[in-house]
Parts: sequence; structure tokens; C-alpha cells
Amino acid sequence: MLPFTHIVRALPATVPFVPPEALERKQGQPLALRVGANESNFGISPRARQAMVEAVEQVHWYNDPEGYELRSALAVRHGVAREEVVLGAGIDELLGLLVRLFVEPGDTVVTSLGAYPTFNYHVEGHGAVLHKVPYRADREDLPALLDKARKVRPKLIYVANPDNPMGTYQRADELRDFIAGLPDCVLLLDEAYIDFAPEDALLPLEVERAQVVRLRTFSKAHGMAGARVGYALAHRDVVAALDKVRNHFGVNRIAQAGALASLGDDAFVRSVVRQVEEGRREYAVLAAELGLQTVPSATNFVALDVGSGERARRLMQMLLQHGVFVRMPGVAPLDRCIRVTVGPSAERQAFAKVLCAVLPQLDIGDEIFC
Amino acid sequence: MLPFTHIVRALPATVPFVPPEALERKQGQPLALRVGANESNFGISPRARQAMVEAVEQVHWYNDPEGYELRSALAVRHGVAREEVVLGAGIDELLGLLVRLFVEPGDTVVTSLGAYPTFNYHVEGHGAVLHKVPYRADREDLPALLDKARKVRPKLIYVANPDNPMGTYQRADELRDFIAGLPDCVLLLDEAYIDFAPEDALLPLEVERAQVVRLRTFSKAHGMAGARVGYALAHRDVVAALDKVRNHFGVNRIAQAGALASLGDDAFVRSVVRQVEEGRREYAVLAAELGLQTVPSATNFVALDVGSGERARRLMQMLLQHGVFVRMPGVAPLDRCIRVTVGPSAERQAFAKVLCAVLPQLDIGDEIFC
Repeated sequence: MLPFTHIVRALPATVPFVPPEALERKQGQPLALRVGANESNFGISPRARQAMVEAVEQVHWYNDPEGYELRSALAVRHGVAREEVVLGAGIDELLGLLVRLFVEPGDTVVTSLGAYPTFNYHVEGHGAVLHKVPYRADREDLPALLDKARKVRPKLIYVANPDNPMGTYQRADELRDFIAGLPDCVLLLDEAYIDFAPEDALLPLEVERAQVVRLRTFSKAHGMAGARVGYALAHRDVVAALDKVRNHFGVNRIAQAGALASLGDDAFVRSVVRQVEEGRREYAVLAAELGLQTVPSATNFVALDVGSGERARRLMQMLLQHGVFVRMPGVAPLDRCIRVTVGPSAERQAFAKVLCAVLPQLDIGDEIFC
Repeated sequence: MLPFTHIVRALPATVPFVPPEALERKQGQPLALRVGANESNFGISPRARQAMVEAVEQVHWYNDPEGYELRSALAVRHGVAREEVVLGAGIDELLGLLVRLFVEPGDTVVTSLGAYPTFNYHVEGHGAVLHKVPYRADREDLPALLDKARKVRPKLIYVANPDNPMGTYQRADELRDFIAGLPDCVLLLDEAYIDFAPEDALLPLEVERAQVVRLRTFSKAHGMAGARVGYALAHRDVVAALDKVRNHFGVNRIAQAGALASLGDDAFVRSVVRQVEEGRREYAVLAAELGLQTVPSATNFVALDVGSGERARRLMQMLLQHGVFVRMPGVAPLDRCIRVTVGPSAERQAFAKVLCAVLPQLDIGDEIFC
């Protein structure tokens, strides 16, 4: 018997996500459409591409563990000090470290029921107790989250704005009221999709900086999911504390170079955002034509409402049989939807074609799987 | 006051390494020679370069969190099952996770006094108590480590083979005896430099796999330090436990592609190893000509013995003034050495030139710094 800690021994053997590569291995063939993980199939900025190709030539050197250049550029961009910016290998790594900073075994943490599973994974991995508040009308329910926080006095509370998996958002004034009402705890505000959101979703950065950690990423609008660059905007004491526990060399040299270059290419990101807006409208029209609802989205994905969890699961499987990878929310009533990434026009047309082909068979029953 | 955990509140604000980039920022100019972090200035395999440049084109897709292809290739290479291989963003990340798997606050851990600081950083970061055993004759002292382990009953014991920072190694038979004598605990065997070591340093993989975790990296002989790819060969229960806590998407897509390609280019790695052997001999000759000793090295660096910690620190500073970045061991008596990476011939000649120029001034005193 290996001498694992009590926490580790109690952990289940689950992982948050089955990757599309695992689906391909299982099926023995590549996917035709990869629209399940909200990867940006618009690709990356040409500037980021050039910077990364050039950085390959220096990859025998360690990356800068201080991420000085990228953090400096992010600080300028956001009008904060460099000491208020910290890099991580994606928001995922930062979530894990932030949980570790604040949570002791047995502590409580509040999130929404059906929200980002990787956050839950880290909370459970540190032996804390999760309280999950149901969504209301496909949005994270700020008043109910606030009630729960007042009741259970968590160390951390997690809110994604815009939300994943539904794509809805909170207005900045709603968030401001929410934060004003919070008891002593740290709000992890996951803004992975903020680039795609309307202006009124953006909470000003100066709001309650001591209590709010803002999480951002180059994985979505910047199209660099495989590079693993996330960052947090936070109080300098939080950044200093992260420096005491983080894996300092964790953000790859090529990734840092690419992110820096992409940050300098606003025109590219704006173009992606515009095309995503167009694609969301297109998917809303498509859904209407097919007699389906879509959840209004402030992200690069659309939740297509097919009526029930059973139908959504079945549709997801049918799409997969046609080589189309989508995901769906894990809990009711959110699981009446499938979640489709909004990519370039050709990809949308290809998805529409498959959806139109399989949807009429959705209620025929199990025989189509035989 | 932010609600940090007790452990975090007690941690000092130190980081294991000051990066060369920070030295450059401080000095306001680039370094002339970067021979302090045992980065491979032989660069990367042409196959790895091509694979990484190609992978940039797909970096908008997440990396495979299972690292399936790379782990499969590593499993074949080492004659183990894929379930006995786990990837991490460098050995650094894996050390942190392994500490987390096994160590509860207050537990004891054994290492050598002056050994890899990042391991200590993670142990302290998890609130454990470190016992440090002095080196003997510039080698980690296996008998003394064993005595200590029997006395303090650690959860983990750390040994690097070959050693960093001295470059010495343990023979496989010595390690085998050591492992046979260990009480119940897990041995983290850091083999970052094993590619450069003589054959008799290589402990067979089947030895006590349940109790020994072997740590390897693409940072040294493969020249991919900035890519952040390390891996552990371990019992499948350890790998399964790591899967419960690790950052699944932590190893960058480009890095995985590069490591896979590099693994397929044995000729490149062999060539690097041969040149490093030649360079070690060259530095031994150089040192002898200058009246210095070198510590026999089984790595891609050489510890040059300049007689005392004070002289070594002064020499390190003098070299830095000439744009030459080296590091040195942190504690006596190891700190009588500076540690110089063994790079290509031209780099060795450039280093020799600067060393020959500054060494005569080493005992002149402080005025040269004015």
C-alpha cells in the first residue's frame, strides 16, 4: 500500500473531460468537426504564428519564469501593475493554485451546479466541501449564490462571466452588487470568454481588487488553447502568494512568445469576435428553422436546446457517429442543450448539414445506434 | 487580510532560481554566454524542430490531456506499460504533484543538503519538514541518507542520479542496495541527467517499481528546456493517483509534438552526449592548466573547484560582469565550485577565454568591482 495522503486516498478516479483525441482513438478515425471544446477554429494571429515559429529556435533555453515581457504587456493593456498579473498554464492551473492558496481540508467553497468541472476537481482535490447553487433561467444565479455564501461562509466563490456551459452573462452592475454583498471570501471570476461578451459584461478592473481574482486566457479569442497560457489579474498579495507555490517554469517559452505577439494584434482578435457574432446569429436562425431554441450567447459557443437531457445525449451520440464532436452540460435542466463551438463559416455550414441530417432521426429511437 | 491557508501564510517569499533573463534586465544588456542553467546549447533535433513548427498550425486545439502518443512512445522505449508513464510540465511540476500525493503537513521528507532547491520548495510549500543530509566527497551520501530515513521515517526521500549541482553519480548496484535498505517510503529518483551518465549509473527499471518513482526530462540531452516536458516512470497506482490531482492540460501541444519527434531521433541525442563528453574532458584540461580541480561529471555540466565559497562567489560575479552566466552550489563545502554547462566547442572556447582573463584577478580583491 503506497502511503498516499488521506485526501488523495479519498479522491475518485475521475477526470473532468474526455478529450476529442480519446474519442478518435475509440472510434479509430479522426473527427470530421471538432466543435465541442470551444477551441477557436479561426486559428491564431499571423503574428503569433511567426513569434512561435521563431521561438522554436530558442526552445533549448528555459522560459522566463517571471514571464516578464508578457506580464508587462498585460499590465499595460489592463492598466494595472505588473505585480498584479500572474501567468499560468491555462486558467486550469491557476484555479488549482488559487484553491491551494485559500482552502484547507474541510473548508467550504461555493459554485454553481453545472458550472466548470475543473474548478470542482481542484476543490475536491484539496479536500474542501463544495456547495452548488442551481442556475436560474440558464444563468448563474447571483442572488442565490450570495445567499449561499452568507450561509456557508466559503473561502472561495466561483463565478464565470460569461458563463460556461450556457453562454449567458451577468451585467457589470449585477456583479458589482453581488460583490458588495459578499461576506469575507475571495471571488474567482472566470472571464475566459469575456472577449466575446457585450461591453456591459465587463466589470471595471478597479472593483474590489482585494477580493476579486479575474481569470483570463489566450485559449479562446486568441486561439491558443494548445499553448496553455492563462493569467490572473489580482491583488498583489495574491500574486505574491502564488509566487510561493506555483510552478515557476510552467508556461512554455513558445507559448509566452505567441501570447505576447497575439496581444499586439487587436485587429485579429476583433475579426474573430466579429465572425463569432455572425456565427451565433447564423446558429440562432438555423435552430429556429429546425424548431429549436438557442440560449442567447455571449461566448464563442451556442447552447442548442433540444428539449430534454435524454434527447441531448442522444443527439450528441448521433453527431459523434457522423464525426462531429460536441459537448453538453452535465446536469438538468441545463442538459437539455448541446453546446456547439462557433467557428468559421465553412465549419458552420458543415455542422448545419450534419445537424439537419440527423435531427429528423432523433426521436426514431435506439435502433439507429444498432 | 486575505484568507490564506496556514501553510501559505507561513511560507517565505523566496523563489528557487533567479533566471538569466532577470540578470539581463538588471544589467540592461543581454548575456554573452548562458552556461548557468545546464540548458543544452546544442539545440534541438531537426525532427523536433519540424514537428514543433508544424504543431504551431494546430495550436488553436487543446493538447491531448492524456498525452497518449508521447506516453505510448515512452512506454515502448522503456519497456513499461503506458499506465506506468505520466507527463508533466517539466520534472518541476511532477515533483510538486508527487509531494502533494504523499505528504501531509508535518510529515518528514529526506533530501541532501545542497541538492535541487525546487524539490525543497515544493516540500515546504506543502508544510512538510525537510531533513537534509550532507554530501560526502561531492556525492549524495547514500548510507547517511539511509540512516536518516530509518531514523525519521520520511514519506519521501529524494535522490538525484546523476547529481545536481556536483555532477557525480551513484552506481546502479549502490542504488539497489540503498533501495533494499529503505523503510516504507517513496524514493523520488531524479534522473534529469541520466542520458549523460555512464552505463553503470542506470538502475534497471524493474527494481522496486512500487517504491521508486523515476523522473526524466526532455530539457537536457533533448535540448527542450523551454518546452516543459518531463515524465515519471512509476507504479501504475502512482500514475493513477497523479491523474486525480494533476493539471491534465498542462503539457503544451507543441511541446508534446516536439518531444515525440525528439524521442525518435536517437542519433541526435547520441551526438549531443558525445560532444558533451568531449567538452567535459576539455574543461578538465583547461582547469588543470589553470591550477584548478574539476569534479568528475556524469552530466552536461562541470563543477570547477576554485577553493572556497568566497572565491567561487567572486568568480561568478566577475564572470557575470563579462556577460557570462554561471551558477554555483548553495552550501558549503559544495560552494567552493562554480557550475558550468558544457556546450558546443565554440561556446567552450569563449568561456575558456573569459575564465583565463578573469581568473588571475580573482585574488586581487574587491577593487575590480568598483
